[in-house]
Amino acid sequence: MPQFKAPTADIQFLLNDWLAIDQHYLSIGAEGMDSELINEIIAQGAKFAEEAVAPLNREGDEEGCKLVNGSVTTPTGFAQAYKQYIANGWNAMLGNPDFDGQDLPYTAAIPVHEMLNAANLSWRLTTMLTESAVLAVDKHATEQLKTLYLSKLISGEWTGTMNLTEPHAGTDLALLNSKAIPQDDGSYSVTGNKIFITGGDHDWTTNIIHLVLARLPDAPAGVRGISLFLVPKFLLNENAEPGEKNAVSVGSIEKKMGIKGSPTCVMNYDGAKGWLVGEENKGLACMFTMMNDARFQVGLQGLGAAEASYQGALSYARDRLQSRAPQGVQQPDQKADAILHQPDVKKMLLTQKALTEGCRALAMLYAQQMDVEKYTSDERHEQAKKVIAFLTPICKGFMTDMATEVTNIGIQVYGGHGYVREWGMEQLVRDTRIAQLYEGTNGIQAADLIGRKLTRDGGDMQQATFTLLSSRIATMTDSVRKAQAVSLLQEWNETSQALLGTKAEDIAGAATDYLHYSAYSLLGVLWLDMASAAEHSSNEHVARGKANTCNFYMKRLLPRKDIHKSVVLSAADDLMAVEDQQFDYI
Amino acid sequence: MPQFKAPTADIQFLLNDWLAIDQHYLSIGAEGMDSELINEIIAQGAKFAEEAVAPLNREGDEEGCKLVNGSVTTPTGFAQAYKQYIANGWNAMLGNPDFDGQDLPYTAAIPVHEMLNAANLSWRLTTMLTESAVLAVDKHATEQLKTLYLSKLISGEWTGTMNLTEPHAGTDLALLNSKAIPQDDGSYSVTGNKIFITGGDHDWTTNIIHLVLARLPDAPAGVRGISLFLVPKFLLNENAEPGEKNAVSVGSIEKKMGIKGSPTCVMNYDGAKGWLVGEENKGLACMFTMMNDARFQVGLQGLGAAEASYQGALSYARDRLQSRAPQGVQQPDQKADAILHQPDVKKMLLTQKALTEGCRALAMLYAQQMDVEKYTSDERHEQAKKVIAFLTPICKGFMTDMATEVTNIGIQVYGGHGYVREWGMEQLVRDTRIAQLYEGTNGIQAADLIGRKLTRDGGDMQQATFTLLSSRIATMTDSVRKAQAVSLLQEWNETSQALLGTKAEDIAGAATDYLHYSAYSLLGVLWLDMASAAEHSSNEHVARGKANTCNFYMKRLLPRKDIHKSVVLSAADDLMAVEDQQFDYI
Repeated sequence: MPQFKAPTADIQFLLNDWLAIDQHYLSIGAEGMDSELINEIIAQGAKFAEEAVAPLNREGDEEGCKLVNGSVTTPTGFAQAYKQYIANGWNAMLGNPDFDGQDLPYTAAIPVHEMLNAANLSWRLTTMLTESAVLAVDKHATEQLKTLYLSKLISGEWTGTMNLTEPHAGTDLALLNSKAIPQDDGSYSVTGNKIFITGGDHDWTTNIIHLVLARLPDAPAGVRGISLFLVPKFLLNENAEPGEKNAVSVGSIEKKMGIKGSPTCVMNYDGAKGWLVGEENKGLACMFTMMNDARFQVGLQGLGAAEASYQGALSYARDRLQSRAPQGVQQPDQKADAILHQPDVKKMLLTQKALTEGCRALAMLYAQQMDVEKYTSDERHEQAKKVIAFLTPICKGFMTDMATEVTNIGIQVYGGHGYVREWGMEQLVRDTRIAQLYEGTNGIQAADLIGRKLTRDGGDMQQATFTLLSSRIATMTDSVRKAQAVSLLQEWNETSQALLGTKAEDIAGAATDYLHYSAYSLLGVLWLDMASAAEHSSNEHVARGKANTCNFYMKRLLPRKDIHKSVVLSAADDLMAVEDQQFDYI
Repeated sequence: MPQFKAPTADIQFLLNDWLAIDQHYLSIGAEGMDSELINEIIAQGAKFAEEAVAPLNREGDEEGCKLVNGSVTTPTGFAQAYKQYIANGWNAMLGNPDFDGQDLPYTAAIPVHEMLNAANLSWRLTTMLTESAVLAVDKHATEQLKTLYLSKLISGEWTGTMNLTEPHAGTDLALLNSKAIPQDDGSYSVTGNKIFITGGDHDWTTNIIHLVLARLPDAPAGVRGISLFLVPKFLLNENAEPGEKNAVSVGSIEKKMGIKGSPTCVMNYDGAKGWLVGEENKGLACMFTMMNDARFQVGLQGLGAAEASYQGALSYARDRLQSRAPQGVQQPDQKADAILHQPDVKKMLLTQKALTEGCRALAMLYAQQMDVEKYTSDERHEQAKKVIAFLTPICKGFMTDMATEVTNIGIQVYGGHGYVREWGMEQLVRDTRIAQLYEGTNGIQAADLIGRKLTRDGGDMQQATFTLLSSRIATMTDSVRKAQAVSLLQEWNETSQALLGTKAEDIAGAATDYLHYSAYSLLGVLWLDMASAAEHSSNEHVARGKANTCNFYMKRLLPRKDIHKSVVLSAADDLMAVEDQQFDYI
């Protein structure tokens, strides 16, 4: 596959032509922000992703991470690229300015994150989790802890990790049993075994700051007895510099399907010194500050992988000459036509393109709402918060399911060559597969969407999302597409409302279908909206490309919603009827 | 995941209760065959797959194949298991009795093949291709070649390979340019470079018999100028034993996403001595003898992977305790309920089960038709041949697409643990992914189905399939399900007929959707038929398990056909409208 190129043209279409970003910054009072500045940041981010990070991706998969004498080394070049990353300030994009952060809008940072994911997911992961750790420390830690740790996490001088999972406690954190015993000096002695810890150790920085869930000795059972602790790899000395090694060690590096360049560690805490973040027994709420951010970011990982796969497939489809196109000879000077001209290959490429660009629009709408939440403090702030809460599980669940489909199509376009490692297409499938699993499996996302986000407060979050999209549609200039969008959104709204008050097992049985039903419906609305906006583009290819891809989506992908809808509206009797022993053949 | 157990109970349900195998053998005149014998073969095959082959699977993936000094070594234990396999006569199951074959019915052999695929796909591959080579040699080679090679290929003393693909010629064999120059002694000097050669070299046998496509010096261009040659790794001496090394060598072993225990070789022929198989310039027809067999067998690989993944997921879902089921506490003596009780997990397991068992029914129906073709020589022979031709691309394309879905569900049930190699769930995804690509990508299967099988002879092959299924439905005893099956089959028939005469690019644009539309429709018919047959089972769990899984299929999976149908019936205008430059963002 060709070297990754950041999709800046599509991002700029979305920011400038679709979201009218200058007007957006003005309306929310984002002082000093305008499209010129944001486009420059995105262009520089693209350059960094393309030149510093993407070239390390293929070899990083082959080389992997190593654990030698208790220390992890990452693939060749990874540490150097990280040093360049933090030197250029990329880690600090979203950080609090009181702690040397750049305080940029999400509409500037999120496109850069997408590019980093696409360029090299293994490399990106540790930086992503540091950003999540920054949020949790900034929001919940004491001033003293912030003074010691926050600037260095924001700059990236140190990285952060998230320690939730234990061997017997994944989805169900109520079962976790790591312990934290209060010490006389106000610290805690943390003991426990954590698995699946991204960036648990590496050779990038002089310290690593672990955020660890554990129970106090007298904590209530269940999730109301979990507290969050900050546990540095090296304790800080009197100069606030890394000193004595803390009692935390790497048990092993997991052997995984993909993201082999990312060290996923088993971490052992053996009476490690830690400090409470947030209140006692309220650790889960603190962790959710990280988790919501991480969930959207994982969705963005799916988007990145899809983009990379599409680029690879498109390039190969143009280069690979096999057979003649059924509609007639396309390249008479060659012995065969490029497979791009085969209708079945066109269909594969357009499926990739329609899903990828549709999800990018969803991600940028999410980023815009994050900006609104950040910069406003009136009713708009509250509304944006609801929209974000509602869209988070959709972004995480759908974009990562989509990525598995799109990256598998990427292999398929290459035929047998797609199965050979050197082309890089199969690596994208392996790397992106984790995104459907971590930060809550996609089944958990679906349960969160339908069980919490949809049904809480009488459907308030869903209504906020409906209102936002209705207001977007209201400004569409293409009247035919506008009517389609109105009707599609209305159908989604009615179906969503019809679910309120449904009993628990039916809700649980409909969860995944509701997530996909919502995602295909909302992507349909966004596609119609984009195609309408593209009509005003001065670039004819953009206009026709968006219009044709929208038509493709409406004809060939949107109908998937109907299958999901029919399940959403029916009960789970068929599932509940199947008893345990009927799963066997006996 | 647990050690693989062959699904003998389901196979016996299909053979005995569903296909009435004793009656089948009587009606086609398969002398000496009855259910007792066949069940014993299947039980022994199960034992071999479970005990000799399955235990090598996980470690084979880690160890892989090695090329040292020009020779390939396979993972530890593989060669030993192969020796046991041929010693027990498994390689000879379908072989011509004139050359020491056992001449068994396909209904006996195919279930054993499924089990071998499920137990260890990497190990199975070389034996599968040997069986295909046997067919080509048996049908097309001279008596002299058969005398020298056929018995040893049937017994498995030597293995066979299939050499089609060249770096620039995969789907489009017209482009291949390996050369074969006639020699004075009646042999040919074969020169060329072949890629993706399964079992191209290994440490199992004293010789390897390569079947190689190449062009004669004066051959016409295109596919009408391709001939087939038998090229042994070692030339035979006067005692017909392997002697001098032929001019064929292994260039490298491909580094692949999966099937790492199977040596996929780059083969270099440098004036290697070979002998013509079949007529000059008619090599492609000979190769298709191998290919049709191989295509069905690849479908069966998908079925095997799906079965293995379902077993792994079911076992984990029963063991893994996380959270409480939404319908109420299921295991009050535990801190949490098994995830099996979560409706979303039930849905995942039932999706796996419904697709796997549905495809097994399809495979067994195919096997039954293979028997009819083999044992009869009247009109039934002709009809069976048409059904087989029609169902081959459906089996290959659908069962392997299905396997990618089902094995990915298997990962999902495990959550993060599914992504860790030691559990074996991700290996199934990686191993089965090749099946959508080789022996013709699934896009090529779809093109074959709609462009050749459906439309040739005015839809004759599709009509034969319709007739077969109609006659099955006619004997159904459950009148409600019978009416559903009649209507479903009728709809499929009308949709298929409506496609005759459609123009080439619309046909090509509809191909993949027609394959999936057909598969979901036919599986629906088979499920209704199975559920009806199961009502007569003396085992209540079988009856209720099939009935409930049928209901699940009808409600949650069959509706997928409607999306495909709507595309099948529409034109490809939306695809053709997209011009090359619109695929870019610029």
